[in-house]
Amino acid sequence: MGSTRARIAIDAMGGDHAPDEIVAGALKAQEELGVEVLLVGDPQQIEASLKQHTNSTRPEIVPAEGTIEMHEEPLGALKRKPKASINVAMDLVKQQKADAVISAGHSGAAMAAALLRLGRLPGIDRPAIGAVLPTIVPDRPVLILDVGANVDCRPKFLEQFAVMGTIYSQYVLGVSEPKVGLLNIGEEPCKGNELALRTYQILKDNPQIPFVGNAEGRDVLSAKFDVIVCDGFAGNILLKFAEAVGEVVLQVLRDELVQGLNGKIGTALLKPNLKRIKQRIDHVEHGGGLLLGVAGVCIISHGASQAPTIFHAIRLAKEAVDNQVLERIQSKYQKKDRQSAVTRD
Amino acid sequence: MGSTRARIAIDAMGGDHAPDEIVAGALKAQEELGVEVLLVGDPQQIEASLKQHTNSTRPEIVPAEGTIEMHEEPLGALKRKPKASINVAMDLVKQQKADAVISAGHSGAAMAAALLRLGRLPGIDRPAIGAVLPTIVPDRPVLILDVGANVDCRPKFLEQFAVMGTIYSQYVLGVSEPKVGLLNIGEEPCKGNELALRTYQILKDNPQIPFVGNAEGRDVLSAKFDVIVCDGFAGNILLKFAEAVGEVVLQVLRDELVQGLNGKIGTALLKPNLKRIKQRIDHVEHGGGLLLGVAGVCIISHGASQAPTIFHAIRLAKEAVDNQVLERIQSKYQKKDRQSAVTRD
Repeated sequence: MGSTRARIAIDAMGGDHAPDEIVAGALKAQEELGVEVLLVGDPQQIEASLKQHTNSTRPEIVPAEGTIEMHEEPLGALKRKPKASINVAMDLVKQQKADAVISAGHSGAAMAAALLRLGRLPGIDRPAIGAVLPTIVPDRPVLILDVGANVDCRPKFLEQFAVMGTIYSQYVLGVSEPKVGLLNIGEEPCKGNELALRTYQILKDNPQIPFVGNAEGRDVLSAKFDVIVCDGFAGNILLKFAEAVGEVVLQVLRDELVQGLNGKIGTALLKPNLKRIKQRIDHVEHGGGLLLGVAGVCIISHGASQAPTIFHAIRLAKEAVDNQVLERIQSKYQKKDRQSAVTRD
Repeated sequence: MGSTRARIAIDAMGGDHAPDEIVAGALKAQEELGVEVLLVGDPQQIEASLKQHTNSTRPEIVPAEGTIEMHEEPLGALKRKPKASINVAMDLVKQQKADAVISAGHSGAAMAAALLRLGRLPGIDRPAIGAVLPTIVPDRPVLILDVGANVDCRPKFLEQFAVMGTIYSQYVLGVSEPKVGLLNIGEEPCKGNELALRTYQILKDNPQIPFVGNAEGRDVLSAKFDVIVCDGFAGNILLKFAEAVGEVVLQVLRDELVQGLNGKIGTALLKPNLKRIKQRIDHVEHGGGLLLGVAGVCIISHGASQAPTIFHAIRLAKEAVDNQVLERIQSKYQKKDRQSAVTRD
């Protein structure tokens, strides 16, 4: 796409802490990751945020008008506000003025804007949102998809998620030989609901998918799998539960550790450790979910994202661009078209 | 059922630690909870386990031959071994010689034996397994059902789970006004897969269900809900993930706490606290899952159950018997029969 440096369009107006935290994360990324950042949004507000920093290189500002509010119905709002920051950011990718988009705004709106403005990759029926969770093994995260884009799925959707997830795991997360699992209620192939039973065989028969079997709930964080595919209903519930459970455990820790004198002394000594524990449990480090299957690299970050999350999101986007994730997915499906009769559903 | 003391039939041969741990838990319960225990299994092995204890009152032994092994296909094995401990235990309830059954053996076999020997309660299409998880609020657990008996559900099954769960929450868990939620991917009624969308309206319209709305993954441990209904696929994945995540977090704690000198001293001081934390995260205290909707009180405990879990399982069974949970469910459905046209699915 022309430039050798990845150009990342950032919805500067999206998220609870926009634009200040978004701009701060973007500046850090521009300086440390060697990417070119395009800040999309209200020029005055972005300028005000930029003034808080003393970076030598100024990112480009791309003007936009307004943003999609969290309570708005995505499709209607995107239509009513054609110049909203998320629409303008997507257009930059469409016009090849940027290689990727990042937004911490209304996630439904970001997904809808990507579908409307960029469209799906050929061969992909439904784009999926992938989320990266830490596992019991440090630096060995697991990619789960879909975590909410498609609540009712057909087996071939999950098959496509598996193909896309494998590529993402290899070329963005750096797993040389990813192991793919199917989220299910038992290890045996005969276990599961109708969707899982039918999907198992399809994944097993597809030579492009390094499928190793069913992943139970207890296996998700075990590092036995690098990619786990599921419908967006189960995936969303799992992701939100996982996000919350870290908080619950830390609360229990705080409650229980301070009991008794020993506890009080221990807690004082352990404060720095607790911070590290929180970091390892937290998913902030992981930047956000990648919207896989649309014709552009799109990262959807959490609404509560602060500068470090945006920084990590930009790193993910850069990896995806530099390693040509979209092109790799497309090439799989160009090959697959010739043998597409294999999987009919 | 005749006796004033609850009579609990226990599959003494089921589980990884049978019969020793099962017998130990049963003896403790007989002494402390005032229940009458019937130990079902191989008399010689049970006698050997009993000899390790000095309790004054000896429980009754009901002879059985063999047990269903974990690798066996439930239906075939139950048929081939009519005198297996789980079959004999279920028959005791059927013949009104016991009020409840507890097994830590093959859970699929226990469920199948209950269905075959006791049958379903009138008005219930599908029995469900309920699991109790601790929440962020001490002594305020949440009941989740179904966690694995029915992987593909129809809205009316979930409606029945909600009715049964409400009664269980009130009369076994002691929640005076239980709040019932539907596991879903968003709070709004318009969110969810087809099953959730259709179930939402049915739960809302049923005056017997204290339905308060959708429960997202992040709400499960928040104590905002006392009962959460879902299909057995999502429920099983959530339960197994929750069970494992406690272990993962404790592992991260152990890894991280010992780093540095402060960490080492802190850890030594905190050891007793860590034990308490483990207890609060653990679900051992909760005894096991209740099989709701069959014509008998059945508790299915984890295969790894040791004496404390069996003790708690017996306490659950006693509460269910003493508070007439089955009779209360039945009376709801006798009333409901008259207005059964309300929910058609």
